[in-house]
Amino acid sequence: MLYPPSLNRLIEALRCLPGVGARTAQRMAHHLLERNRDGGRRLAQRLAEAMDGIGNCARCRNFSDTELCSVCTNASRDASLLCVVEMPAAQVAIEQATGYRGRYFVLQGRLSPLDGLGPRELGLDLLTERLAEGEVGPEGPLVAGVEATAHYLAQLARQHGVRPSRLAHGVPLGGELEYIDRGTLAHAFGARQDAG
Amino acid sequence: MLYPPSLNRLIEALRCLPGVGARTAQRMAHHLLERNRDGGRRLAQRLAEAMDGIGNCARCRNFSDTELCSVCTNASRDASLLCVVEMPAAQVAIEQATGYRGRYFVLQGRLSPLDGLGPRELGLDLLTERLAEGEVGPEGPLVAGVEATAHYLAQLARQHGVRPSRLAHGVPLGGELEYIDRGTLAHAFGARQDAG
Repeated sequence: MLYPPSLNRLIEALRCLPGVGARTAQRMAHHLLERNRDGGRRLAQRLAEAMDGIGNCARCRNFSDTELCSVCTNASRDASLLCVVEMPAAQVAIEQATGYRGRYFVLQGRLSPLDGLGPRELGLDLLTERLAEGEVGPEGPLVAGVEATAHYLAQLARQHGVRPSRLAHGVPLGGELEYIDRGTLAHAFGARQDAG
Repeated sequence: MLYPPSLNRLIEALRCLPGVGARTAQRMAHHLLERNRDGGRRLAQRLAEAMDGIGNCARCRNFSDTELCSVCTNASRDASLLCVVEMPAAQVAIEQATGYRGRYFVLQGRLSPLDGLGPRELGLDLLTERLAEGEVGPEGPLVAGVEATAHYLAQLARQHGVRPSRLAHGVPLGGELEYIDRGTLAHAFGARQDAG
């Protein structure tokens, strides 16, 4: 063994990062040890803090380190508008590209019963409660980037007397929302249509 | 602010990794929070352990979490052979590609006086001591992958009555040793020549 055991363990642990294989992990470990130990120590602290401190907002399921997230507690947001997204990254993309000032619901996944991701795992009971409260106006919810789940959500919305809408054509099918240019996303957001 | 502050701090901290920009850092943070918190916690531990526990071998300057590394304390290694490399990754590449069974000296950099990297920073006083001990046979040292530093090292070696050698032609100039295919490296290693 050329490496000290703790270096082998670090290289192995770095491979939990997406897109990082054995060689990249080795490069990262060398880089930190040779040039940026302070950065490595800071990253260790931030990781520990985030993995244990960040949970999900009790209302919208987005990442939060408090019971309710900053969007759900922001009184200047329009509570009659609701945008349902699969992942937090899609919410970030919508906030950056559009003027949307309503609330969100974050599924943290997409409906995929074969993978054990059913309505319960996506928090649809929580979404149902929220629709039943009647706070969402007749114009919402907007279902963004959840092709696989859209039909189910549209039915759910209609059961609660609200008219679901979807992003307009312009967003490529199956594309990840966060990789789409802002102009396209803003256009699709403005021209959204009734969900099937 | 969409994100909880601890998530923003994690994304910022991830950017200390080489090749990781804002968007990749965001993807990494989301991935860990959504799918692999245990992996994230383990990485935090391994980072803290490595940044504080790994130092440099007192004899060869390679990474080590003990005073002397496992290569320097391995009695089955031929102490009359010495291979000088710039970075630990080059040593890994040589071990994997060649049958070299001697010892190493790791500069942890290359001679670059304008950047404040002089003989002292590269531990050349330590290398001088080692040559003065007379343990290195007349055939060594081999200077691998240190084009910028080779001339200086060759002079140093000759002052101590040993004949320095260099890797044979075959290794591209300026290429990083760890990205060269094993066959080329093995050939260059076997056919090494006197250093200028």
